[in-house]
Parts: sequence; C-alpha cells; structure tokens
Amino acid sequence: MKLLRWGPKGCEKPGALDPRGRTRDLSGIIKDIGPSILKKEILAQLRSVNLMRLPEVPASERLGVPIGGVGKFLGVGLNYASHAVDSHGNRASEPTIFTKAISCLNGPGDDIVLPRHTQKPDWEVELGVVIGRTARYVDTSEAMDCVCGYVLVNDVSDRGFQNVSGQWDKGKGCDTFGPVGPWLVTADEIADPQTLDLWLQLNGRTMQRDNTRNMIFPVAALISNISSYITLNPGDIIATGTPRGVGADQKPEPRFLQPGDVLTLGVDGLGTQRQKVVAWPGHSRVAGMTTVLRDGTR
Amino acid sequence: MKLLRWGPKGCEKPGALDPRGRTRDLSGIIKDIGPSILKKEILAQLRSVNLMRLPEVPASERLGVPIGGVGKFLGVGLNYASHAVDSHGNRASEPTIFTKAISCLNGPGDDIVLPRHTQKPDWEVELGVVIGRTARYVDTSEAMDCVCGYVLVNDVSDRGFQNVSGQWDKGKGCDTFGPVGPWLVTADEIADPQTLDLWLQLNGRTMQRDNTRNMIFPVAALISNISSYITLNPGDIIATGTPRGVGADQKPEPRFLQPGDVLTLGVDGLGTQRQKVVAWPGHSRVAGMTTVLRDGTR
Repeated sequence: MKLLRWGPKGCEKPGALDPRGRTRDLSGIIKDIGPSILKKEILAQLRSVNLMRLPEVPASERLGVPIGGVGKFLGVGLNYASHAVDSHGNRASEPTIFTKAISCLNGPGDDIVLPRHTQKPDWEVELGVVIGRTARYVDTSEAMDCVCGYVLVNDVSDRGFQNVSGQWDKGKGCDTFGPVGPWLVTADEIADPQTLDLWLQLNGRTMQRDNTRNMIFPVAALISNISSYITLNPGDIIATGTPRGVGADQKPEPRFLQPGDVLTLGVDGLGTQRQKVVAWPGHSRVAGMTTVLRDGTR
Repeated sequence: MKLLRWGPKGCEKPGALDPRGRTRDLSGIIKDIGPSILKKEILAQLRSVNLMRLPEVPASERLGVPIGGVGKFLGVGLNYASHAVDSHGNRASEPTIFTKAISCLNGPGDDIVLPRHTQKPDWEVELGVVIGRTARYVDTSEAMDCVCGYVLVNDVSDRGFQNVSGQWDKGKGCDTFGPVGPWLVTADEIADPQTLDLWLQLNGRTMQRDNTRNMIFPVAALISNISSYITLNPGDIIATGTPRGVGADQKPEPRFLQPGDVLTLGVDGLGTQRQKVVAWPGHSRVAGMTTVLRDGTR
C-alpha cells in the first residue's frame, strides 16, 4: 500500500494510491496518516478498503509528508562505505545518530528554501524507515517487526552550519531541509530494504547512485542500536544515511546548492522527489558574498 | 500564572496553582496545556479565570511535564562560564545546540531510570524556556516576545553514551532523561530570567549552585541564534545549559548517578524537582561492572 497526504501544508488529508496509480481520498475513512494508524492490524484493515470506490484526488494536488504527527526525525551519519571513506577515511564502531528538527519536514515537491546566510547547502538521498511499533532494546532479529514502511528522504544539510559548533543540529534542521515522500510504502511491498537502488540528480546530472546493500549498518542494526539508547515510537522516521556523491564530495571543487538548481531523487519502489532550490524570500544571494560565506566567515 | 499537568503519564489533564498554592483542575476550560494555548492572548484569557471556583486536585496526584505536544526539546551545551571552563577550558563563538528526544520527557517527580548498559549517567539543573510564538530570524531585541514562560529542567545525560559517536543524541535522549516541571511559569511572573539562582543536590549535598546571570549566551541571544538556523514554534522547549558541578566535574573522581540516589533541584520561582534514580527494571548493576563501564569498555 502506498499511503500519502495531500493538500496545503499543515492541512494535509490522508490518501492512498489505487491499483492504477491514481490518488484516492481516505479522509472519509481515517482522520490522518499518523502514529495511531501505523500498527500492523490497522494497516491490514486499511488494505481491505476498496480504493477504487473512494473519491479521486486531482493529480495537481500538492503532496505533503506522508506521515503526520512525527515525533522524532532521526538521521544516520556516514552509513555508506563510499561516503564514509570519502568524508573521513575511517569507519565508526557504531552508527552516528543525529536529529533533524521536525519543523524542517517538507513535502516531496516543495521548494528547498535556502536560509538567509546559508553557507554550504547540500543534498543527501536516503532510504527512510518509518517505525510502526515501539522499539526499546530490540535485537536485530526483532527489529524489522518494528518497521511499518519506508519513505524517500532528502536529508538536506548545510555543511557550514553543521560544523559551526560540533553538534550537527543547526545544519540539519533548517526549514524545508527535510523533504519526505511522496508515499509511505508499507513494509509488505519492500521485499528486502537492503537491495534498493537510490539515486539523485542535480539539474539532470547524476550525482549519487548506489544501493542500500552498501550500508555499513543495515536497517535492522540501526533500529537495534538506536533502541538501546532512545525508545523509538510509531511515526518516528529514521533517515538511514547517504552514499557518495554529495556536493561536499565533488572534485576538484565542492558544489553546493544555488537558487535555481533542481534536485530529482529516488529510491526503488518509493517514488521520486523533485525540488527547486530558491533563495530566502526577499533575500538575494550576492555572488561575492557567497564566496565569503564559504570561507567560513560570516 | 503557574500552569501544570496532572495525572498518569500520557493521560495528563491541565491544571493551575491557585493563589493559595493548591492545584486546580482546568480540564473544564481547556483540553490541554499545549502549543495552541501558549499565545499571549489565550494566556491572558486563562489568567482571568477565577481558579478558586474550579475543582481542587488532590496534592497526591502525579505531576507531568507541564506542556503537552512539545515539538522540539533543544539543549544548549557549555553555557555557563564555570561549566564551560571546567569541561574544555575555552569558550565557543556561538552556542552549541543539541536535541533531546521528546520520548525522554518525564514528570518532575518521576524516577530517573538508568538505561541497561548505562555508563556515566549525570545531572544538569537548567532554566528551561518555553516558546509561545513562532521565532524565525528574530533579533535579540524581539526574542523575549517569543517566550511564553519558563520551566525547571534536569538535562540528565549519560557522558559515555554522549561521546560514543560524536553527536550527543544517544546520551541526551534516553527514556526518563528529561524531567520538566513542576510548572510552566508564565513570563509575566519572571521579571528577569537572567537573575535566577539555580541549584541541585545529590542525596542532600549541594553539587550545583549558580545564577542565570552567569550564562555565556543569555536567553535572548539563544533564541536569536537558534532562530537563525531552526524555526522555533509554540511549545518548543530550550534547556539553556547547566553550571559547574555536574558529576563529571567532581574531583578527584567523577561521581555518576547510581540506583538509590536522590536528586533535588530548583530554579528561583520555578519550583523544585525530586527524582529517585533506579536501575532498569529487572536489571541490577553489579559494582564491579560499574567500574569497568567507567573505563569506557562495554
């Protein structure tokens, strides 16, 4: 099942893709797609609904984040062999976990708005895992039972902000830096989350292309590890890390996001995203200033 | 006004202290104390309610976190001259911001439950700031208009977990590591948040005592800085950092929390907290094992 939320930001209604790929309105059946409907039994009930009999939603409707009421939006650093080696040259003994502010959540086609004093805005295509059942001290063998589905995530990050004071929160949580969706694809549709191709293009040119089999810590290991520190609850999202090919990795010069750029990205079976990059409203980036900011001076 | 939430965890009802210091039930007037009631106008309406005519809540009722629906629970690292010097010997050019998982939120008198493999669990008395109005790129001159009130916070932290992989999230967000309350004290009752004594005792012995005037980045500077990266929304809590005297600072040996310890703490005008420290249920810490864990081996 491919669940989604449609309508203006902050007022999204629940929906689902029908067998022909058209969007159907679920708002007569459930109030929202949120933590309380992510349990296996409830999802099974939803699966029995005949979507073809529900009102069709025009294809022009905006799609929002496919889960409402997200409690925690966690990220994983350096979780692909390629990216980890590029960035630091060594591997960690356990995953690095950080938090993306829930206020950065954004629809899959919404603009990425660069912060006023942005320094090094960058992209990261990722497999996102959605928790459906409370996970606390779960073994890797039980971990996948806690997953209700998967989402495509662009873990947009400002590398300058990220390193301004040791903790990454300032660079990870800027408004619009968390595009999620288009769909919450329920776990039954993804036979093996460790065999998915993922890719990202900047202005039509492929920048990232890898497969989730190359994760250092696979999904089950991530859930087990995180749950030994922090309890995961239904509706929590884990962005599982990005492979090689982010802007900071580019040679001979890094390539960061600029107003006018267009990002397209996807993960097998989870749909695609497309974002325009725009400047903060009323704020034009001067070319000279950009250079200054990239040097780390503000 | 001193707002509070009372009742079993997860089922709290709204309340307030009456002029005689007794708890009154607000559930006939508002559904909860959450983001939607933190606006100035709504708080002003609440202030006009004659609390003496509302049902009294027995003093034996548990108190919960005084704000429901918290979106972001942010913390500030090394924000007192004393603590910053003790821990690192130098000051940062801007505040270090980190995130406490909202699943760690706990009532002011609830037990602190040590994680199964806890390494170096520690205390941190802090002034907590509650946001009442969206704050995005606010100047320091406007920042205090975004504050609806203050709370006492114990930013419980496992120093071992905190340093396991660079980002602090694993040590800051463990279940029960976020006692908040007893009250949300509205901003009108705190003439100057930078003149408040704060203190913490371990088993009756004073470990922390300082004054919020010694913050490196005062409340207005914190809000202004954070809001230039991450939009703050009503109901967000910022724990503004802790002074000297945490367990890790103790000489000649650090002193971390042990089952059986009792913490009491307070900030002028914000009430006090008292927590018993207990082991994870069914999990007894062996003295020898504790020593091993303090060496960093697991």
